[in-house]
Amino acid sequence: MLDICLLGTGGMMPLPQRWLTSLMARYNGTSILIDCGEGTQIAMKKKGWSPKPIDIICFTHYHADHIGGLPGMLLTMGNAERREPLLLIGPKGLAKVVSALCVIAPGLPFEIKCMELTEPVQSIPFDGFHIEAYKVQHNVLCYGYSIVVERTGKFDVSKAEKLNIPRNYWNRLQKGEIIETEEGAFTPDMVLGEPRKGLKVAYCTDTRPTESIVQAAAGADLFICEGMYGEPDKLQKAKEYKHMTFYEAAELARRAEVKELWLTHYSPSLIRPEDYIHGAQKIFPNVIAAKDGRSKDLLFED
Amino acid sequence: MLDICLLGTGGMMPLPQRWLTSLMARYNGTSILIDCGEGTQIAMKKKGWSPKPIDIICFTHYHADHIGGLPGMLLTMGNAERREPLLLIGPKGLAKVVSALCVIAPGLPFEIKCMELTEPVQSIPFDGFHIEAYKVQHNVLCYGYSIVVERTGKFDVSKAEKLNIPRNYWNRLQKGEIIETEEGAFTPDMVLGEPRKGLKVAYCTDTRPTESIVQAAAGADLFICEGMYGEPDKLQKAKEYKHMTFYEAAELARRAEVKELWLTHYSPSLIRPEDYIHGAQKIFPNVIAAKDGRSKDLLFED
Repeated sequence: MLDICLLGTGGMMPLPQRWLTSLMARYNGTSILIDCGEGTQIAMKKKGWSPKPIDIICFTHYHADHIGGLPGMLLTMGNAERREPLLLIGPKGLAKVVSALCVIAPGLPFEIKCMELTEPVQSIPFDGFHIEAYKVQHNVLCYGYSIVVERTGKFDVSKAEKLNIPRNYWNRLQKGEIIETEEGAFTPDMVLGEPRKGLKVAYCTDTRPTESIVQAAAGADLFICEGMYGEPDKLQKAKEYKHMTFYEAAELARRAEVKELWLTHYSPSLIRPEDYIHGAQKIFPNVIAAKDGRSKDLLFED
Repeated sequence: MLDICLLGTGGMMPLPQRWLTSLMARYNGTSILIDCGEGTQIAMKKKGWSPKPIDIICFTHYHADHIGGLPGMLLTMGNAERREPLLLIGPKGLAKVVSALCVIAPGLPFEIKCMELTEPVQSIPFDGFHIEAYKVQHNVLCYGYSIVVERTGKFDVSKAEKLNIPRNYWNRLQKGEIIETEEGAFTPDMVLGEPRKGLKVAYCTDTRPTESIVQAAAGADLFICEGMYGEPDKLQKAKEYKHMTFYEAAELARRAEVKELWLTHYSPSLIRPEDYIHGAQKIFPNVIAAKDGRSKDLLFED
């Protein structure tokens, strides 16, 4: 199960009734945060989640509304006596930015590891899932992220028997182990059927629509995409500031054939995003104007 | 009139129901902010005040819970098309810290001036008031601040007549102007009585009790002081982490003979500060456990 919580839905600046856009995800004991603007740790606490066990924080880019909450979050983790290292992932310049921000968060009792993205599309493997980072198009270097949970095929008894795999290896092979023996190596694919559909959540914000987004979000169970402007006459503004309208986001969702689209990262001037959702629904029916704290538990299909 | 608003009362980390400690003050068209932790701009907006017209921000020290909200606040000012320069005041290292934080707030459309404090007690004059910075005792270099509004004496007709001050100069002299003429200079004191009592608000946080605080807060109309711990058995912890108990703050207020004490900067573990106020009231009766957003308009005595 992949737990998802969109902690906030604001862009540019935090508002009394709208936290900045940030995504929290949990899978198989690993906690991932994407973006950490001012107030994200408060939004997290409001949902009853704690910053302490976060394993990975991904940053789309280094504007304050996406990273300004990092020093406070690190201090809160430190105050909670976290000792495990924390992995930060982001575009080039990450180590420099983090080191600058840490002047106001001295003496942390845990290690921070920085992984700077070097490729336009980069896959980072973890235990049972991978994070796919993909370059998007903002006024500074900016990436989107997908969290992709792989799923192996079902155990195939007839295949295992046909290949004469010793029965005492079956369980270990099913769990993904490669077993070296004197007769050669046994690999999991020898006992498993075709890989089954896993889970995918795609997240992108602070970007114009790009082909990289369509590719990265292709077939996603959930696509969380910026919709800075709902008013149809703001397309020019979206182009100028390198953001998107609701309708552009919906068009990306349609082309990527995702299951569901949540809009986020609203302009502070957009008081009631839901007023503009009908236009987006005409392009992609399964879209909502997400609100702070919207959660979903994504389950495997069968 | 000196408008005061204690925007938040939390220490260490922002909580869903408690913003970080920060003081907003307005006098005669000048807006002053003391400390700017994560979320301060949201607390300000909740009170209906805007960050845009802030003229001066004073920092007690450079831990994230006192300065982490600066980059976001600067961007919000910039987005509101502020063009006037902003004065920042703080302990040694200010320019370096601000420059580090500004990596996530690029392209601001206004100038930032940094004034680093160099003396243990330093008075900074403005139009009709001054800010007094005084060194306190934390685990890093830390200052408290008082905002002091001066008040001249009443216009004294008999004095002006006795000294033969020409009547056409009276109004200008009363307003503080020095008038140079061929017969010599006329100064405001020639038409004014004894200076009258002005207004003083003293603010200190993240410190052990010090003599400098007693002196700086002496006779203050309002003294806002940290009370990190209310539980009487936490004195040792207060000493270790260089903070104060409610009772130590009350003792400072008693010695400084202030009119009123507001406690603030509560430990996140202190859920209901008001539960411990009675002990502090035994030492200094006019003390309250302040809550977020507490405001007061201080008026001249007559």
